[in-house]
Amino acid sequence: MPENFFARHQPLLKQAVAAIQTRGYWSPFSEMPSPKAYGETANDEGKKAFDALLHKPFPLDQPGTTGKTGREESPFGFELGITYPKVNLDDLIPAVQRAEAAWRNAGPETWTGIALESLVRLNKKSFEMAYAVMHTTGQAFMMAFQAGGPHAQDRGLEAVAYAWSEISRVPKTARWEKPQDKNEPLRMEKHYRVVPRGIALVIGCCTFPTWNSYPGLFASLTTGNAVIVKPHPGAILSLAITVQVIRGVLAEAGLDPNIVTLVAHEKGDDVAQKLALRPEIKIIDFTGSSRNGEWLERNAHQAQVFTEKAGVNPIIIDSTNDLKGMVRNIAFSLSLYSGQMCTAPQNIYVPQSGIDTAEGHLSFDQVANAIGEGISKLLSDTGRAVEVLGAIQNEDILHRIEQARGLGEIVVDSKQLPHPQFEKARVYTPLLLKATAGDEAKFMRELFGPIAFVVATQNTAQSIEIAKRAALEHGAITMSVYSTDNKVLNKVRDAAAESGVSLSCNLTGGVFVNQSAAYSDFHASGANPAANSSLTDTAFVANRFRVAQSRAHV
Amino acid sequence: MPENFFARHQPLLKQAVAAIQTRGYWSPFSEMPSPKAYGETANDEGKKAFDALLHKPFPLDQPGTTGKTGREESPFGFELGITYPKVNLDDLIPAVQRAEAAWRNAGPETWTGIALESLVRLNKKSFEMAYAVMHTTGQAFMMAFQAGGPHAQDRGLEAVAYAWSEISRVPKTARWEKPQDKNEPLRMEKHYRVVPRGIALVIGCCTFPTWNSYPGLFASLTTGNAVIVKPHPGAILSLAITVQVIRGVLAEAGLDPNIVTLVAHEKGDDVAQKLALRPEIKIIDFTGSSRNGEWLERNAHQAQVFTEKAGVNPIIIDSTNDLKGMVRNIAFSLSLYSGQMCTAPQNIYVPQSGIDTAEGHLSFDQVANAIGEGISKLLSDTGRAVEVLGAIQNEDILHRIEQARGLGEIVVDSKQLPHPQFEKARVYTPLLLKATAGDEAKFMRELFGPIAFVVATQNTAQSIEIAKRAALEHGAITMSVYSTDNKVLNKVRDAAAESGVSLSCNLTGGVFVNQSAAYSDFHASGANPAANSSLTDTAFVANRFRVAQSRAHV
Repeated sequence: MPENFFARHQPLLKQAVAAIQTRGYWSPFSEMPSPKAYGETANDEGKKAFDALLHKPFPLDQPGTTGKTGREESPFGFELGITYPKVNLDDLIPAVQRAEAAWRNAGPETWTGIALESLVRLNKKSFEMAYAVMHTTGQAFMMAFQAGGPHAQDRGLEAVAYAWSEISRVPKTARWEKPQDKNEPLRMEKHYRVVPRGIALVIGCCTFPTWNSYPGLFASLTTGNAVIVKPHPGAILSLAITVQVIRGVLAEAGLDPNIVTLVAHEKGDDVAQKLALRPEIKIIDFTGSSRNGEWLERNAHQAQVFTEKAGVNPIIIDSTNDLKGMVRNIAFSLSLYSGQMCTAPQNIYVPQSGIDTAEGHLSFDQVANAIGEGISKLLSDTGRAVEVLGAIQNEDILHRIEQARGLGEIVVDSKQLPHPQFEKARVYTPLLLKATAGDEAKFMRELFGPIAFVVATQNTAQSIEIAKRAALEHGAITMSVYSTDNKVLNKVRDAAAESGVSLSCNLTGGVFVNQSAAYSDFHASGANPAANSSLTDTAFVANRFRVAQSRAHV
Repeated sequence: MPENFFARHQPLLKQAVAAIQTRGYWSPFSEMPSPKAYGETANDEGKKAFDALLHKPFPLDQPGTTGKTGREESPFGFELGITYPKVNLDDLIPAVQRAEAAWRNAGPETWTGIALESLVRLNKKSFEMAYAVMHTTGQAFMMAFQAGGPHAQDRGLEAVAYAWSEISRVPKTARWEKPQDKNEPLRMEKHYRVVPRGIALVIGCCTFPTWNSYPGLFASLTTGNAVIVKPHPGAILSLAITVQVIRGVLAEAGLDPNIVTLVAHEKGDDVAQKLALRPEIKIIDFTGSSRNGEWLERNAHQAQVFTEKAGVNPIIIDSTNDLKGMVRNIAFSLSLYSGQMCTAPQNIYVPQSGIDTAEGHLSFDQVANAIGEGISKLLSDTGRAVEVLGAIQNEDILHRIEQARGLGEIVVDSKQLPHPQFEKARVYTPLLLKATAGDEAKFMRELFGPIAFVVATQNTAQSIEIAKRAALEHGAITMSVYSTDNKVLNKVRDAAAESGVSLSCNLTGGVFVNQSAAYSDFHASGANPAANSSLTDTAFVANRFRVAQSRAHV
């Protein structure tokens, strides 16, 4: 039965493997929540499915259940009222181990087939997933659909393609024949077996629960590991649905559904730490704070640890021949999901003497004000603004905005906007501040949320120096540069490469520095403190399994 | 100039890349120290070159040299009297960093070309290397030639092939074109750059200084990292020659020779720990004790750490239809280089009720005695014996033999043999002891050197259980099984795979469990405490570099 999944999805797998090699645009999952792509009734059905989950225990039948947990609330202003199984690890983990022993022997084609079928089924649930992601993360509907659904599925499929490439590169057998001068050659037959590490743990975040979790989840699954998914207490639902879907595929294939399980928990308990240090856990994929990520890197010695943590993303403005395009693009990047993205820019470095543009020279203040006006203009229509901004995921971010107001001269202030549909939604526009290069203590740390600085530097050379050093010391995932001078662009390219940051040059159109496309863009490099790995490259998958060999004379 | 090396060695590289995929027998470096392969005068010249190095400062001109260090002595009974530059790390490391900055930009083809040319030149020095390895490790000449020369070069070339495969799989550019319904597509050009980690540290061991160091050294070099080589104080010379050769190739190519440097030191100082914790060190390859390896894994957080440590390798004897072949094979495996190999067997599990053979049933004692007699017979001719045994690398091993005598009933005792050429050589035959499964405290730890146990178990099932558990808890690199029963063989195959041990089945001829062939055998699995990585697989190379990308609209 599972072999059928593998056979059925051969074209999909082959295309994905080709895509990660050529790295052009490709996706099998439509990013448009349109009736054409998903059917006339898909949105209604997804909404109904989401509504039907509210104020009930989530249907997940797992061993070791001792009660209920879960207190998610929508950033759009209501309680979800969904509970999840509360788990006793000492009962759950032995059940996962039993499942893992059989999974281990199912072999690469079954592992890969189950992963592919799961992704295809998740794609069919993209509307339900969109509402689940929207009402836990605060993303507006369109982003919740795309990032929570098809783009997350793309990142999952990308990981499957990398994992399959690696496990299928190991030959199953080899004939070894060593010449012995005039004597008969020594002849051996060798067998190579892909051996999974064991049990993998995926620790989700509260802003992109599926997008950031799927790569680790599907990479571990495709390399034969059992997976325990531990969502952030604030964003459980989309991962609970994910676990439910995969368990359904496993059961249908006659496999133990406990190969994939959910450990939900509430804020403030120590379930994550306990789980992460269990000797049975051999792989950990983590997205979250630097503090927690570094703790895992330094303490979970029994596991391969893959982390994505915090960073400070820069924009370097040197010059432009499309001021309007630049301002529009930056304003959108700062506003999109209220800057609650690990790829959102925070510090915009501009020479204190200003910049050259096609419309003539602009002073530093003129550049700062242009960006401020760009934000105001983008968000002037409230109906449109809430679809860009979404809602603030948690109260901590509101406090951070409040405190940041004192960090510099305000270019545009953050203000609350009413949401036409959701009365109690936490919708806030970005706060843009001015700073000078000497104020590093203020701007040189991640202020996660809709907070950004326009930083006056001595010149572009200093902008580059600060951006590079900041990436190396504090981490950064993205860097953006605007310049009409190829020499400057090349210097920034070198600085970005040397500090392990993905660079976007002169974005003035419909691509934003926040966006990272599966199969083409490497998300994070693993070469600075923002992450110790990349989504997705070979290193992300190659150590999730080992190879055991046996040999005998023929 | 370096591009020429890359072009020149294309056929070699292509064959090596093909070999690691098909994993059959292949080697470009002749393992026979014969005039036919290496020229009529090669041995004489190699011997002369070695002799010319004795009792002198080794010619290595490095920055940060503050004096001399080195007190190597040959296990065959004389002092080498060679000194090496004593290095001030605070002066050396900045020089390496400067070299690394240029090396980083030289690019994949130059990195790979330099590595290939270095290996080819090292091959030409195989006789000089043989004497250098022999008179530091205690290996007899033939093994010193093979393991120290061509086999080490093979392991180095294997690492180059893996590294080149990975870095060349990253496309240099991609065109990304995303359809926009009725609008013009979004078009971007993306550039991907392979970014080395920085400076790599290779920590050598005293028994296989080149064989165990070349994979890490050449993997790091081929992925663009600078490499600092820190040999074991007891076996510096062969790595000093290696560094000298690579520095020569670098200089000839117009590159900074400080891309590869040597940090020699004497026993008992803390140079290794200091070096390993330097923030500039981003990769560490280590071969040595479990204590030091685990310390690195737990403390060198700034680096990717690859370790090969200690283990307890088992032989499981269930039954055989070739008793003589089995005994001969085991006796040789225990005697070769006096068991001073991480692949040498230590514990031989035999059912207490004995085993079935083609010659009828043998009791436990008969099996133990047969192996003991096999050892005595193999080593009965002293001239031949010393060429199998080599010499004991250090005094600690002699003490270990002394202490091990009390651990069980002696089947054959260890005795000193005179060496026909070297009066003061430390040549000792293996100590074989009896134990029972209940004596785990005695035999269940690595007793590095010529010490082995024949362990009486309840039955083969218990033998398998102990061997598997021991590998998982204490580590093991090899496992060997003798059985005429396919069911037993399959059970052992599963146990070996689940405990990450390379299995050899029914070796009765000219292949020994100690031997691991480059391009075909994975050496260590990284799946048990004997090592956290494998020589060589993709995971061994893929995290030695990162990919930095930049993108811009077309």
